[in-house]
Amino acid sequence: MTVITLLTDFGADSPYVAAIKGVLLSIHPAATIVDITHSIEPQNVRQAALVLDQVCQRFPPGTIHLAVVDPGVGTERALLYIEIGQQRFVGPDNGIFSRLAHRTPPRTIIALENRDYWLPTVSATFHGRDIMAPVVGYLSLGIDPARLGPPRAEMILLDWPEPLVQPGLIRGEVLMIDSFGNAITNITRDHAQAITDLSQAHVKSGQQSIRGIARTYGDTPPGTPLALFGSTDLLEIAVACGSAARALRLQVGDEVRLEW
Amino acid sequence: MTVITLLTDFGADSPYVAAIKGVLLSIHPAATIVDITHSIEPQNVRQAALVLDQVCQRFPPGTIHLAVVDPGVGTERALLYIEIGQQRFVGPDNGIFSRLAHRTPPRTIIALENRDYWLPTVSATFHGRDIMAPVVGYLSLGIDPARLGPPRAEMILLDWPEPLVQPGLIRGEVLMIDSFGNAITNITRDHAQAITDLSQAHVKSGQQSIRGIARTYGDTPPGTPLALFGSTDLLEIAVACGSAARALRLQVGDEVRLEW
Amino acid sequence: MTVITLLTDFGADSPYVAAIKGVLLSIHPAATIVDITHSIEPQNVRQAALVLDQVCQRFPPGTIHLAVVDPGVGTERALLYIEIGQQRFVGPDNGIFSRLAHRTPPRTIIALENRDYWLPTVSATFHGRDIMAPVVGYLSLGIDPARLGPPRAEMILLDWPEPLVQPGLIRGEVLMIDSFGNAITNITRDHAQAITDLSQAHVKSGQQSIRGIARTYGDTPPGTPLALFGSTDLLEIAVACGSAARALRLQVGDEVRLEW
Repeated sequence: MTVITLLTDFGADSPYVAAIKGVLLSIHPAATIVDITHSIEPQNVRQAALVLDQVCQRFPPGTIHLAVVDPGVGTERALLYIEIGQQRFVGPDNGIFSRLAHRTPPRTIIALENRDYWLPTVSATFHGRDIMAPVVGYLSLGIDPARLGPPRAEMILLDWPEPLVQPGLIRGEVLMIDSFGNAITNITRDHAQAITDLSQAHVKSGQQSIRGIARTYGDTPPGTPLALFGSTDLLEIAVACGSAARALRLQVGDEVRLEW
Repeated sequence: MTVITLLTDFGADSPYVAAIKGVLLSIHPAATIVDITHSIEPQNVRQAALVLDQVCQRFPPGTIHLAVVDPGVGTERALLYIEIGQQRFVGPDNGIFSRLAHRTPPRTIIALENRDYWLPTVSATFHGRDIMAPVVGYLSLGIDPARLGPPRAEMILLDWPEPLVQPGLIRGEVLMIDSFGNAITNITRDHAQAITDLSQAHVKSGQQSIRGIARTYGDTPPGTPLALFGSTDLLEIAVACGSAARALRLQVGDEVRLEW
Repeated sequence: MTVITLLTDFGADSPYVAAIKGVLLSIHPAATIVDITHSIEPQNVRQAALVLDQVCQRFPPGTIHLAVVDPGVGTERALLYIEIGQQRFVGPDNGIFSRLAHRTPPRTIIALENRDYWLPTVSATFHGRDIMAPVVGYLSLGIDPARLGPPRAEMILLDWPEPLVQPGLIRGEVLMIDSFGNAITNITRDHAQAITDLSQAHVKSGQQSIRGIARTYGDTPPGTPLALFGSTDLLEIAVACGSAARALRLQVGDEVRLEW
């Protein structure tokens, strides 16, 4: 049983996603297909890279993740098959896998150039359906990835800002807003290891200052801002039973300071 | 073949749902997973309880329904496995199963306390992924539920307002607004059995009075308000080809009077 | 392995869709079910017909497509099983299959009248769940479609406006707006075969004039309007990295002129 996941910017409930699933099932009728999300902001490769990194390691070894956020469709950008850890990925060479690669370098990079594994007719505008989906379908049937095209030594890597760690101060920033409105930062639990008493630390962003790092969303009354290390060990700013992004006007890129 | 359903307040198309599916498939790669909805209003346990009750009995006997609307995550609230009729459920002990239990008392209640069936690392904020999903995965493989933890005699029951039935008058209220904007009340077809001529009854809410109970949405011209017993035998107020909630400003909790 | 697809106007993430899936899995627990979309505008049969036509041919031969956009539910409209090419369809007789039939006439039309394949209790308002879903479930198990009811010679056909092709001018119109905001017209690549140099053609709508037909969305700078033949070979007006519908105020029915 090979699992295939899909992550795109086509919009929730888009029939273009169904077209990809139709191609996959035409090649491998017994494939198990799971949607990660299709609500990536249009052409936001950076957001796609973050979500993929957060979710993919939860899937069984050998899962093939098809990521189609592809503003360069039809231009000269390459399409890649890569392996990182025990997971496999197919998508455009635009940095979409670079948050993953920031943690663990890819073991294999192959450029999808062998037209034997593409649909017979390839449109100029929908390579997710015409090239990437059939490649993933054949991979899920067990073909050797080396048949897909030539190996590559490199792929495009985006710059991922690291927090600045000083005595008594970590300066990070908001990486993304999740679907609850929580502002997720680039400050990890590891960065904060030097803090002996988390209840005395302050998390500051703009005019907002939150005292103490909570263990869970239930630790404060509804409507109260709080900071905690979330389910992927990243520091996040939340509002109990509400949206921190809306209530505190937090945006991607805003500076977040952890002081103690 | 065991079917697993998912109902959460994570938002449509949320990658957090995909993380749960990844955990399920890692334990049981051949599981069949169906989304009920992820558009429950954040932390609205009552709405989740209603939707679960409306939909779950359509699934095959033995289906496991995982319901994660869990404002108390990380606090002392228990997590439960329960059996009601031929269906099985996993979720927090916060009343999410109490609309179901209002109809049929649970046969089995077990507190999920055996860490052997949890993920090795449990976050404080995402028990849906770290405790409930692996438990459901193992249940779907056929383990004995008694191994999950100790039995319980009780679970939290919310109060479900019953309509007041008088001669010539039933006073009920709006329980939920569905995705078409229909206002679904707590008045059932059974409550209205005493009415000999439904076409002469009146359904009133606020200033609005609708004469007669229709058989179907197609019985009135587009834009016209109508009342009917819907697909789950509850009285609902609808607007043909439109949204009753918007057109008539109906809200959850509004009084609805059925007079004859 | 039979694949079943679902297309409805119930809204993304609607629990009513889950009720249909529960009925399908109760009859055929191993069925593979794929959502095409549930975001058809309520009661917009024409939009449903277009999306179905765009997506269905990507699925494996024998796939059963269940299309529930059914403003006439509970009235005298018939429910149909039809075969077109290698695909099979179930839905109301309201024109929902007429875009497909515009291309290829149906081989078989059967009215769903045999109650043996319906749920025992049929509501007046949800035939998708009570009649069509069980019929599709039994079809996916391999029953002979002739058992579903009597054959029919005809079904309802909507009028699909054809572009007017003149020397140097094709007059078409916007058929639909897709989820990216691209305005998709009824002018096909075939209609434009007479144009020797696409880069010198003009696409006009309202005050807007776009010079040249691009090959791909990446051909122009972000924010620039462009015209191209999209992934289903229909002329569309797009805005690179944006929404043409919003930026150019394009709507379904707007005239689009291709001049050369």
